[in-house]
Amino acid sequence: MSHNTFGHLFRVTTWGESHGPGLGCVVDGCPPGLALTEADIQGWLEKRRPGQGKFVTQRQEPDAVRILSGVFEDERSGGQVTTGTPISLMIENVDQRSKDYSEIAQAFRPGHADYAYFAKYGVRDYRGGGRSSARETAARVAAGAIARKILGGVTIRGAVVQIGPHAVAPDRVDFARTEDNPFWCPDPEMVPVWEEHLEKIRKAGSSTGAVVAVEATGVPAGWGAPIYGKLDAELAAALMSINAAKGVEIGAGFATAAYSGEDNADEMQIGNDGAPLFLSNHAGGVLGGISTGQPVTARVAFKPTSSILTPRRTLNERGEEVELRTKGRHDPCVGIRAVPVVEAMVACVLADAFLRHRGQTGGGAFQPAAKGRS
Amino acid sequence: MSHNTFGHLFRVTTWGESHGPGLGCVVDGCPPGLALTEADIQGWLEKRRPGQGKFVTQRQEPDAVRILSGVFEDERSGGQVTTGTPISLMIENVDQRSKDYSEIAQAFRPGHADYAYFAKYGVRDYRGGGRSSARETAARVAAGAIARKILGGVTIRGAVVQIGPHAVAPDRVDFARTEDNPFWCPDPEMVPVWEEHLEKIRKAGSSTGAVVAVEATGVPAGWGAPIYGKLDAELAAALMSINAAKGVEIGAGFATAAYSGEDNADEMQIGNDGAPLFLSNHAGGVLGGISTGQPVTARVAFKPTSSILTPRRTLNERGEEVELRTKGRHDPCVGIRAVPVVEAMVACVLADAFLRHRGQTGGGAFQPAAKGRS
Amino acid sequence: MSHNTFGHLFRVTTWGESHGPGLGCVVDGCPPGLALTEADIQGWLEKRRPGQGKFVTQRQEPDAVRILSGVFEDERSGGQVTTGTPISLMIENVDQRSKDYSEIAQAFRPGHADYAYFAKYGVRDYRGGGRSSARETAARVAAGAIARKILGGVTIRGAVVQIGPHAVAPDRVDFARTEDNPFWCPDPEMVPVWEEHLEKIRKAGSSTGAVVAVEATGVPAGWGAPIYGKLDAELAAALMSINAAKGVEIGAGFATAAYSGEDNADEMQIGNDGAPLFLSNHAGGVLGGISTGQPVTARVAFKPTSSILTPRRTLNERGEEVELRTKGRHDPCVGIRAVPVVEAMVACVLADAFLRHRGQTGGGAFQPAAKGRS
Amino acid sequence: MSHNTFGHLFRVTTWGESHGPGLGCVVDGCPPGLALTEADIQGWLEKRRPGQGKFVTQRQEPDAVRILSGVFEDERSGGQVTTGTPISLMIENVDQRSKDYSEIAQAFRPGHADYAYFAKYGVRDYRGGGRSSARETAARVAAGAIARKILGGVTIRGAVVQIGPHAVAPDRVDFARTEDNPFWCPDPEMVPVWEEHLEKIRKAGSSTGAVVAVEATGVPAGWGAPIYGKLDAELAAALMSINAAKGVEIGAGFATAAYSGEDNADEMQIGNDGAPLFLSNHAGGVLGGISTGQPVTARVAFKPTSSILTPRRTLNERGEEVELRTKGRHDPCVGIRAVPVVEAMVACVLADAFLRHRGQTGGGAFQPAAKGRS
Repeated sequence: MSHNTFGHLFRVTTWGESHGPGLGCVVDGCPPGLALTEADIQGWLEKRRPGQGKFVTQRQEPDAVRILSGVFEDERSGGQVTTGTPISLMIENVDQRSKDYSEIAQAFRPGHADYAYFAKYGVRDYRGGGRSSARETAARVAAGAIARKILGGVTIRGAVVQIGPHAVAPDRVDFARTEDNPFWCPDPEMVPVWEEHLEKIRKAGSSTGAVVAVEATGVPAGWGAPIYGKLDAELAAALMSINAAKGVEIGAGFATAAYSGEDNADEMQIGNDGAPLFLSNHAGGVLGGISTGQPVTARVAFKPTSSILTPRRTLNERGEEVELRTKGRHDPCVGIRAVPVVEAMVACVLADAFLRHRGQTGGGAFQPAAKGRS
Repeated sequence: MSHNTFGHLFRVTTWGESHGPGLGCVVDGCPPGLALTEADIQGWLEKRRPGQGKFVTQRQEPDAVRILSGVFEDERSGGQVTTGTPISLMIENVDQRSKDYSEIAQAFRPGHADYAYFAKYGVRDYRGGGRSSARETAARVAAGAIARKILGGVTIRGAVVQIGPHAVAPDRVDFARTEDNPFWCPDPEMVPVWEEHLEKIRKAGSSTGAVVAVEATGVPAGWGAPIYGKLDAELAAALMSINAAKGVEIGAGFATAAYSGEDNADEMQIGNDGAPLFLSNHAGGVLGGISTGQPVTARVAFKPTSSILTPRRTLNERGEEVELRTKGRHDPCVGIRAVPVVEAMVACVLADAFLRHRGQTGGGAFQPAAKGRS
Repeated sequence: MSHNTFGHLFRVTTWGESHGPGLGCVVDGCPPGLALTEADIQGWLEKRRPGQGKFVTQRQEPDAVRILSGVFEDERSGGQVTTGTPISLMIENVDQRSKDYSEIAQAFRPGHADYAYFAKYGVRDYRGGGRSSARETAARVAAGAIARKILGGVTIRGAVVQIGPHAVAPDRVDFARTEDNPFWCPDPEMVPVWEEHLEKIRKAGSSTGAVVAVEATGVPAGWGAPIYGKLDAELAAALMSINAAKGVEIGAGFATAAYSGEDNADEMQIGNDGAPLFLSNHAGGVLGGISTGQPVTARVAFKPTSSILTPRRTLNERGEEVELRTKGRHDPCVGIRAVPVVEAMVACVLADAFLRHRGQTGGGAFQPAAKGRS
Repeated sequence: MSHNTFGHLFRVTTWGESHGPGLGCVVDGCPPGLALTEADIQGWLEKRRPGQGKFVTQRQEPDAVRILSGVFEDERSGGQVTTGTPISLMIENVDQRSKDYSEIAQAFRPGHADYAYFAKYGVRDYRGGGRSSARETAARVAAGAIARKILGGVTIRGAVVQIGPHAVAPDRVDFARTEDNPFWCPDPEMVPVWEEHLEKIRKAGSSTGAVVAVEATGVPAGWGAPIYGKLDAELAAALMSINAAKGVEIGAGFATAAYSGEDNADEMQIGNDGAPLFLSNHAGGVLGGISTGQPVTARVAFKPTSSILTPRRTLNERGEEVELRTKGRHDPCVGIRAVPVVEAMVACVLADAFLRHRGQTGGGAFQPAAKGRS
């Protein structure tokens, strides 16, 4: 990852600001011959789109994606496929309302990137946070839609597992339930609790943090490139790069600090299908930076939205002390709309790991059971 | 980060296995003219070196580093300096004792990378874990010693803040006390608690997890390259790439999930020295992926050493079910010796961020206060 | 350089096909605070634009560039400046006329990339060569316009110095005369010769090769990063990546093979201004991969346009032998319109070298003369 | 390529100076399971080794390579194989004779990198040119030996085709004859001409330039990654990065500038074996940056060795004008010993292209003929 690009063989470069003409990405290195239309991408963007409920920003953005390159109507396959050349995607900004931001043109919003960007560059696009706006994540979701095409048998699912102090118990997590409610909540019983909490937060002009969990099933053993391209290290970077992310853990994560070696060991045996079977998954599907064939699991902590109505002390560009309350249209809990973004980043990392693994080794993962049972 | 290299302008490539002839790294892109001798590096290696107490592995390795390139005795400066060309460092393996590992030549040690490496590559150096051994981290520490030379005014300090269930309270953390005890413990009162806990663990042939905290002071505002070279994202990758790491958090990290926006906002005012002053540091010194001038803080969770004496069920290379107890010389708590490694990784990430920031912008961070007060 | 991206700190990613909706690039890592408008870029695109004379393709493309991100109207400076974030540029395709290409949908045009793309990807956008079309070079010219902004004191000028068998003698090259004629010819006396040659070629439906020379003056000593980021090696890659390029030489190039060491040595003395002065420039301004302060000079050979009216034997996608004459609108000598592209690639390579040099060393090139004369 | 590393999936990082303890490289990303011993590498190093004849430097270096990591004695295969982890190679410097270089400690040898390194870094290892010495190329040859292991069916052969004004006619080139003489000369009749020429040069303490040709046969269609990872662009960078290289051409190269489109077109038909057959190879086996299945051919121009006995005017580090004659042990024609280096660089580029092609596409090149004839 560097500048505005991430990935090695499957590479994503994003661009765009919150209140410019639009945003987009160039997805490079995609294998050829994959069926890909705008509708394939649009479906995933819908999940992230703003303006869809009272607990997310009221900004109305259709987020209609255009594919500008890298696909071709292939007669042989009878449909539009990727050609192996860079896929340029663009989403226009429609509902910018720059006037909302006139007040903060000079002052640094606490908790936002305003001060840091100004300190680094000496100039900043203050409208809606400019480049640092979470609007950039639409490009990630679009790229992730392409990554999923590469990942055939892999299923990636995210869920919000904590909002404020209210955490879903691990044994209550059912990824199949996340689309039943506006919070990507995997536990129906938690839904009313969060609803009440968020309603209070929203009315107070406040905000709240959250934790998002993600799991990828169907990842074969062998993906990841130690030592500095470890699958878990790349996931950590990809997930920490999401706006407002403050922590990433793989598998049992921080809980392992309190474990003994006996607690932590994921024992193995041969399953009924003759394949290796792990008896637990504290490792989160990664050992030594390489996938083990178990589900790859991670969790990401998101801080509360920094835009709140309560006045906060801060500075302006002239170095004067001022008080600022951040009006505008904001998500009270950015963690909710982060779910499709987390999923997309996991998809991109896995697609890149798969292509690199195939490059170095030819791609055939070893199957000890097959040998053992023959 | 890719394969066995990390960094962009300041780049580190490591190599070597636990029981091969040695290990080392090539540090490329180092600025010229920095005073550098083997002694400068050796001092940091001593902190990580095995065989130094009963709570770390008994393997006896002098870890004597040789500089093979990239420095020159400069008459003008009267000492050995870096020349801007790649610095090759090598550490010989002395106390390999390969015989210890004969039993595990065929079986996959649970929790180790054995199975994953075999699944990926179809062949593995099973002696001491081969490439996946924590011995590789000596090369990181050596590289970090060079990174610190670049970082002049920056101080990087790590501490163990949790071992097993016993965590140091945040207000008890005093980085000045970490060298008084064999655990890098920043709280003298916690030392006997850990000592007792570890003694019990060690006698049982068990192991325990830990959390390491690190802070870098003196980092100016402006380092880090959004969106995919964010300082916190690069720290996350660098720290997650350390053996046994399972979680990384920046600043208040996972705790922010329970925060409200009011709790989390780090307000600003002008300090007595006329410079911007933050009234708290939940952000861990990074906003929008760019340093703010506050201390950069992070925490890393380490799982328990996977090598334990209790028999565990696992498979062998022929796909047969076996039981394995891992004998050999191991750290009961890998988190302890990870402290110098965590520091080194932070140093390397910061040095790289500094050089890239200087490349893109010329390096002069904006100082609003200076303007405001003039 | 990899996939569709080149550069390290100054990075350019291009996308787009000849007959898709458009083409463009993302320029990442640009220093902040540089004045930049669409007009700044458009001026350079005009030089490359098709449809401007009878010796270049008659395709009519306005090549109007839009800046989609990375700039901001800065009140302090009173104009639009770069912000340090990615600059996305887009050029719409207007005059595609896909029908022209129906005949070659199945057959591989000899000398074109048709067969190679099909062999690699199994699918290809055959309309106008798709991604392999020289239309992609518009994005390079646009990126080069930004690179020039970074390069302040550096002047980059190209010229056609050979068309077919008619070469301009080295002592007749005057870069100041290239805009007086439609060939970028630096020698007015050669203009009528080329005119006659090209007229004959054009009428015959044939094509001809060419050589383009380029020089960059004002490059200080010290740019370039040995061993594998040598300035000349990066120029070689950048120039060879241009469509139809078949050779690159630096300074005296292939001629040095016949030189003796005495011929080749560029001797040095102190100039009247007290600065180091080279007495010749066979090296082309680069020694050991690092700029010396002399003009950086290179030459690039371009093969004849592969599209000709004479029928040629080839294959189609079904593996059948066919004869093909390539109709459509083509440059009889691609070398002519390559001049702005060559200049742009040199600009991009130099801008990247400058930023990396500044990153590693702080950027102050050593000036021995200043010392010597003090 | 950046700093001291080149390649993407197959990556080579070299280090070391002419008169330091040694030199070496780290080869990363090598596929696992390839048989590899030191002898495999040593054979190629012998071809480049100094001290082997009167027309090359008399420096006596055994150039004995040690493999320090990345291989393992694999019982299953009964021999030492690569493990997929980084392969560290080291060659000790034995015959440094630093005293030879005392005179040039202060002065910049014309044509060498001395001035440029000093201008860039402000410090330089003047002993034998330090990092800029051609001794570094031993590491390239070692890496190339590993690349060849990956390239199974590909054969790479180089030859000197011009020394000074004496060029071998293209139709006299017979790669099978290059090992019959000390010049890698592919035309036995040219040998005595070069011998006489070089004897004269050597006695005069002078030097001469040369051209090296290389061809790789057995490269399937489909390798190379347009637009900025074109196979020819990567070859250009790799070959231009070799010490003293001043020009690179692919296929017919600069000669194509004088061609007509009819001359240049490589027509295709179906061969007797049913596979696509090109009737000529002006393209040098690359179209649109992608291999076509024809032999990949290139030529590299090398300038004369800059070290000559004739006094030349230059400067010293204090900015004073001095005269310098370069004594020491030098190759009168560096082009000769460059042959194994050129071959090695081609091998590394091809290996990297193969792995990346396999990563993106799965690696199966399309075979139209197979379809056409079925």
